[in-house]
Amino acid sequence: MSKPLILVVNDDGITAPGIKALVEAVRHLGEVVVVAPDSPQSAMGHAITISKPLRLKQVDVFEGIKSFHCSGTPVDCVKLAVDKVLHRHPDLCVSGINHGSNSSINIIYSGTMSAAMEASLEGIPSIGFSLCDYRHEADFTPSAYYAKYIVEQVLKKGLPAHTLLNVNIPKLSLADIKGIKITRQARAKWEEEYLERQDPTGKPYYWLTGKFVNHDHGTDTDEWALANGYVSVVPVHHDLTAHYAIPFINENWDFSVIDKGNDNPAPTISKEDFNL
Amino acid sequence: MSKPLILVVNDDGITAPGIKALVEAVRHLGEVVVVAPDSPQSAMGHAITISKPLRLKQVDVFEGIKSFHCSGTPVDCVKLAVDKVLHRHPDLCVSGINHGSNSSINIIYSGTMSAAMEASLEGIPSIGFSLCDYRHEADFTPSAYYAKYIVEQVLKKGLPAHTLLNVNIPKLSLADIKGIKITRQARAKWEEEYLERQDPTGKPYYWLTGKFVNHDHGTDTDEWALANGYVSVVPVHHDLTAHYAIPFINENWDFSVIDKGNDNPAPTISKEDFNL
Repeated sequence: MSKPLILVVNDDGITAPGIKALVEAVRHLGEVVVVAPDSPQSAMGHAITISKPLRLKQVDVFEGIKSFHCSGTPVDCVKLAVDKVLHRHPDLCVSGINHGSNSSINIIYSGTMSAAMEASLEGIPSIGFSLCDYRHEADFTPSAYYAKYIVEQVLKKGLPAHTLLNVNIPKLSLADIKGIKITRQARAKWEEEYLERQDPTGKPYYWLTGKFVNHDHGTDTDEWALANGYVSVVPVHHDLTAHYAIPFINENWDFSVIDKGNDNPAPTISKEDFNL
Repeated sequence: MSKPLILVVNDDGITAPGIKALVEAVRHLGEVVVVAPDSPQSAMGHAITISKPLRLKQVDVFEGIKSFHCSGTPVDCVKLAVDKVLHRHPDLCVSGINHGSNSSINIIYSGTMSAAMEASLEGIPSIGFSLCDYRHEADFTPSAYYAKYIVEQVLKKGLPAHTLLNVNIPKLSLADIKGIKITRQARAKWEEEYLERQDPTGKPYYWLTGKFVNHDHGTDTDEWALANGYVSVVPVHHDLTAHYAIPFINENWDFSVIDKGNDNPAPTISKEDFNL
C-alpha cells in the first residue's frame, strides 16, 4: 500500500516558521509535498488570481520534501497543486501553521482556512492549523505535537464528506495545554477603527485597526476552549445556506406583487424606467 | 421618521453598469450612499487590506447620490463606509449588481457576496445581487426590477438575525423570467485546468481556466431555479460550523493518546523532537 499523499500549504509564505513546523509534524506520516505562496498572503480570504497568470517554481526549502512556491494566493496554491503538481488525488491537505488565531469569524478572512476549504471543495480531507501567537519567534512545538496527533486521527478515522477542520492552538506550553475540545465557531466580530493619516500633500489615508469582540457566552465555542487552555477543533463545511430562513421568507414576502397570471400580466418595464 | 439609509457597494468597481442599475433600483427607497472600489475587484473573496493603507475619495458619479470610491477590496469598502462615511447605522446594504453569476459555490470566491457578508457581520441586513451575464453591455432592466422588489420586501419584513441574501438573476427578459424561488446553495464546484504558456525567456506561467460542474440534482437549489427561469434567492449565514460532525469526532478519535492523568503524564516533547 502506498503512503498517504499529504499536501502542505499556508498563507504566511513558504519561509514562515509555521509551515516548517507543520512539515516536520507530518513528514513521517506520508509522502509530503509543499506548495506555498512565495510571499505573505494573510487576510486574503478566498481570493483567487484571475486577471494575471501565476508563477510556480520548485525550490529546496525542506530537506527531502518536494516543494514549490507560487506567486498567487493560498487558494491558488491548492488549485495549482491539484492540477499541475500532484499526480494523484491527495489523501489529506494541511494548511498552516498560521502565525495568529483563526478562531471564530477570523475563519472568513483567513488565507490559511480558505486554502483548507478549497482543498475540501476538491474532495480532499483537510485541516487548517493556527497558533494564537503572532510572533515570528513563537514556539511551534506544542502546535506540532497536536498537529501530528490530529493528522494521525484524520488519516485513520477519516472525516465526514465535505467537512474540514479549523484547529486553533492556545499560546501555552505543552504542560499547560489541557487537551482538545471539539467546538463550534463562536459568534464574534471585529470592531474596526481606521486610523487616519495624511500624506505629504495633505490627502488622507486610512490604516485598518480593530478590536475583536466575542458576543458568545457559550461554553461549547472555540473562543471558550482557547481561553480555558484547550486546543480547539471546529468542524467546518461550505454550505452557507441559512436553511432556517427559507420558511421565514416564503411566509413573509408578498409574492403577489410579482406573480404572473391572468390578473397580473408580465411587467412592462423598460430601460428608461430605471434610467439605464 | 427618517428614510432608511441604504449603503450600496460592489466588486466590479464604481463605474460598472451593474452598480448604476442597483443605485437606480433603490434610489427612491431611502437615502442612498455609495462606497465602491476604484477598480475591478472580482474574485477577491473576503480579502481585506492590512499591510497597506487605503484611500477614500468622494466622487460625482450618480446624480444626487453621495458617492465614494476606495482603493481597497469590497470588504474594505464596507468597513470604511461603516467607520468613516456613514454617520448612523445603515438599515440595509446592497451589493452588486455583479456582472456574472454568484450562485452555488461561487459565493465563496465572490467579492460581491463577501461585501454583503461583511455588512451582515456588522449587523446590517444585506443582499448581494448578481446577473448571470458577464457582458459589459448586459441588460440590467430585469435585475433592477427584481432588486427593487426584493429590497422593498426586506425593508418591510426584515430578515432573521445574522442572515443575508444571495440573489441571482437569470439572463432572460422580464417576460421570460417566471418569478422568484427561495432556494439553497447547490453542491457544485469548479474543475480547474491551468493553461501553461512560456515567457520570452522560456519560463512557464499559468492562466486559470475552469469548468463549473453541478453535482446536485435537487430541485430546491439555486442552480435549478436559474436553469428553469427563476430568480434565485438563497438565505445565507456566516456560521461555518459543521454541527453534524461534532459527535462523529467525539466518538471516533482516540483521545487516550493525549489524555493527561496519572497513567499518562504531560508529554515531554522538545523543539528538537520536531527539528524546530
